Amino acid sequence: MKLTHYDRAGRVKMVDVSAKVETHRAAIAGVLVKMRADTLRAVRNNPKGDPLEVARIAGISAAKRTAELIPLCHPLMLTHIDVEAKFVNEGVEIMASVRTTGPTGVEMEALTAAAVAALTVYDMCKALDKGVEITGLRLLEKSGGKSGSYRRT
Amino acid sequence: MKLTHYDRAGRVKMVDVSAKVETHRAAIAGVLVKMRADTLRAVRNNPKGDPLEVARIAGISAAKRTAELIPLCHPLMLTHIDVEAKFVNEGVEIMASVRTTGPTGVEMEALTAAAVAALTVYDMCKALDKGVEITGLRLLEKSGGKSGSYRRT
Amino acid sequence: MKLTHYDRAGRVKMVDVSAKVETHRAAIAGVLVKMRADTLRAVRNNPKGDPLEVARIAGISAAKRTAELIPLCHPLMLTHIDVEAKFVNEGVEIMASVRTTGPTGVEMEALTAAAVAALTVYDMCKALDKGVEITGLRLLEKSGGKSGSYRRT
Amino acid sequence: MKLTHYDRAGRVKMVDVSAKVETHRAAIAGVLVKMRADTLRAVRNNPKGDPLEVARIAGISAAKRTAELIPLCHPLMLTHIDVEAKFVNEGVEIMASVRTTGPTGVEMEALTAAAVAALTVYDMCKALDKGVEITGLRLLEKSGGKSGSYRRT
Amino acid sequence: MKLTHYDRAGRVKMVDVSAKVETHRAAIAGVLVKMRADTLRAVRNNPKGDPLEVARIAGISAAKRTAELIPLCHPLMLTHIDVEAKFVNEGVEIMASVRTTGPTGVEMEALTAAAVAALTVYDMCKALDKGVEITGLRLLEKSGGKSGSYRRT
Amino acid sequence: MKLTHYDRAGRVKMVDVSAKVETHRAAIAGVLVKMRADTLRAVRNNPKGDPLEVARIAGISAAKRTAELIPLCHPLMLTHIDVEAKFVNEGVEIMASVRTTGPTGVEMEALTAAAVAALTVYDMCKALDKGVEITGLRLLEKSGGKSGSYRRT
Repeated sequence: MKLTHYDRAGRVKMVDVSAKVETHRAAIAGVLVKMRADTLRAVRNNPKGDPLEVARIAGISAAKRTAELIPLCHPLMLTHIDVEAKFVNEGVEIMASVRTTGPTGVEMEALTAAAVAALTVYDMCKALDKGVEITGLRLLEKSGGKSGSYRRT
Repeated sequence: MKLTHYDRAGRVKMVDVSAKVETHRAAIAGVLVKMRADTLRAVRNNPKGDPLEVARIAGISAAKRTAELIPLCHPLMLTHIDVEAKFVNEGVEIMASVRTTGPTGVEMEALTAAAVAALTVYDMCKALDKGVEITGLRLLEKSGGKSGSYRRT
Repeated sequence: MKLTHYDRAGRVKMVDVSAKVETHRAAIAGVLVKMRADTLRAVRNNPKGDPLEVARIAGISAAKRTAELIPLCHPLMLTHIDVEAKFVNEGVEIMASVRTTGPTGVEMEALTAAAVAALTVYDMCKALDKGVEITGLRLLEKSGGKSGSYRRT
Repeated sequence: MKLTHYDRAGRVKMVDVSAKVETHRAAIAGVLVKMRADTLRAVRNNPKGDPLEVARIAGISAAKRTAELIPLCHPLMLTHIDVEAKFVNEGVEIMASVRTTGPTGVEMEALTAAAVAALTVYDMCKALDKGVEITGLRLLEKSGGKSGSYRRT
Repeated sequence: MKLTHYDRAGRVKMVDVSAKVETHRAAIAGVLVKMRADTLRAVRNNPKGDPLEVARIAGISAAKRTAELIPLCHPLMLTHIDVEAKFVNEGVEIMASVRTTGPTGVEMEALTAAAVAALTVYDMCKALDKGVEITGLRLLEKSGGKSGSYRRT
Repeated sequence: MKLTHYDRAGRVKMVDVSAKVETHRAAIAGVLVKMRADTLRAVRNNPKGDPLEVARIAGISAAKRTAELIPLCHPLMLTHIDVEAKFVNEGVEIMASVRTTGPTGVEMEALTAAAVAALTVYDMCKALDKGVEITGLRLLEKSGGKSGSYRRT
């Protein structure tokens, strides 16, 4: 097994996608923000509006900035970004889904969207509960490109 | 318990720190990038140089952009950012430590640095192993400010 | 009357605030997004949640980026940003309020927050009504600094 | 009439343009920066060079950052951005024109360019006249895409 | 000879590439960071790891932000960025190579990558030697587009 | 001699300025954009306005983004940025001057402003002359901070 991000001399390098064909690409990532029951109650009982909307928006915005944050990511023209956030027993579950037509996949974009949405939920809860934990950030599905489809089992 | 990021009408709001005194603030966050044994071996055996240096640098850069990513974070003049990344049995363990002198804490900056460093490790491994998981992103310590010190147990 | 942003040779210049004392500064800006009655109804009748929350969040985020957008603005550590958006007869009225402790005022930050919140409302309505108009973007109040307080009459 | 930026549950969403064909798109937006006669005179009489050049450049730069400012905008590879600014009786009139080849239109890019150019003119005048007002920010023309051409009457 | 970035009235303008065909484009730029022999020794003798890795990463990241830094540059989807940095007798020599498929060339992206990598080497050395100099930043090669290939002699 | 940007294990690190006192800091950097005589003539003869204004504005904007470009730079609240650009026999000479009150110096900000202004001049000339060279980017003066003043001889 060989890392694609290092050359033979061990120096970091970007993968060259100049010769790759542009195909439809999609990726879905998930993450859980775990919190105490009383913290979760405080978030859910927010008087009006949806307290998770700000996390969704932060996640969508972050996906567009993935190539600025992750040094070896290629810039990509994303055609769709969707971030869902819902209350579950243990806290808030987030799913981020990203699509593009391009020469490389959007796994990092989906993971970045999920991570920043989770950090935004954390930011909202941190005055109540310093023990909130972001866990299980992982790729759930991807499709498109030479390496084909993947679905986490 | 009341969320600090929502007003009485349930609308999102930034905490007003205009009247807070500037004090020394510090925070440390940790995270684990879990991967298969053979993936970990491939990363460790990278021929020359330190394969985790790029993750450290990405984490340091990301801490400086926290207020751009997290909508309700205040901009802060960070005086120190340190990101450590080391190989452990299960994968790569990352610790991010941030300091400032300012009217509000740097928990989100430390967590953002740790998250982006972890995503960068993920990016490096993703061609080998799509099952890599980022887990246990949490605040380990904080000090400074009215709410005092915290240390995760 | 002399422009502060030009030197004697007519070249653009930033105002030097190195010798100014840091004081509390505040500014409030307002703007109106005018739309047809049926467009306004469609926005108000959005099934759940507050359709203006995304505009508020975009405005808050934009205030933090004022110095990146306006070439001669100084970077400032904002201590508070608040964006209100409410339905009025003619459309959506937005008020943005910004505070800092610093050597120069936050008028541009308040105006930028209001402008970007208004553009975000526009973005939401543009598929329904291409004639939406953003109007009356202006400073309502400012305080702090040598030039003292101002209130629009 | 239904908002395209909300799903059936009332949550904010980006429009999915993955299946749209790439076509030539263009949009033109206009805005007026209204100021007192003596302020306008001071700006016009700037000794050398064109005092509106900085506003043009700020507008061009801002168009490229539209997707960072407006949460639900798609990133687009703009092929042309032009910002004109000229003195008129009431102040400074700005026109921004943007083009791309892509799956969605550039109305928001043209409006953002015009808005930021106008804010930059405001910044230049604000020491002289706190009553300057940005008004009539609106789409003048668009072409390309399924919804066809539009020209404001 | 006529400048492409100015219109007939002498106002700055972006080149309109809307009608240009997308072709493969490449550019290579070089630069030298000149330093004293003892400074160079201190950099080379850095105990572990490659002291130039941070410069390479900064250069790669900067290439992706060229259109944000250079007002009249078009945004481009870069398909490859490579930055090499090596010790030579006089200091550190940097070569940056960029590729895209697009309607305009990537000379500015290669030069920006080289410049920021050089500035990062400077940052590393500045506590030891304030006389470090960045010199010979120039285009070495380009290919693709109507103007054809170029190779510096 | 020891590099301040590496720890004992050879890993990159940011200098911790948490305990440093805030003092007035200033730095001036210079650079030359060398071009053929006929290219220089074409730039100088630009019909109206000052063809170097766009370079000045790009340099000022870039200084504010130094901490985003150079990984180990601290964010700083700059109080003044000035970029001069003038025609000389060999091409265009640029001087950038930056000030702040802070715990660390502004050398990198001055150098970044000068570099980006020079790249912007290059961008303007590149259609006429691919051999333009950016040379002699160096610190001319600095003051403030424990290490005291420096003036290049």
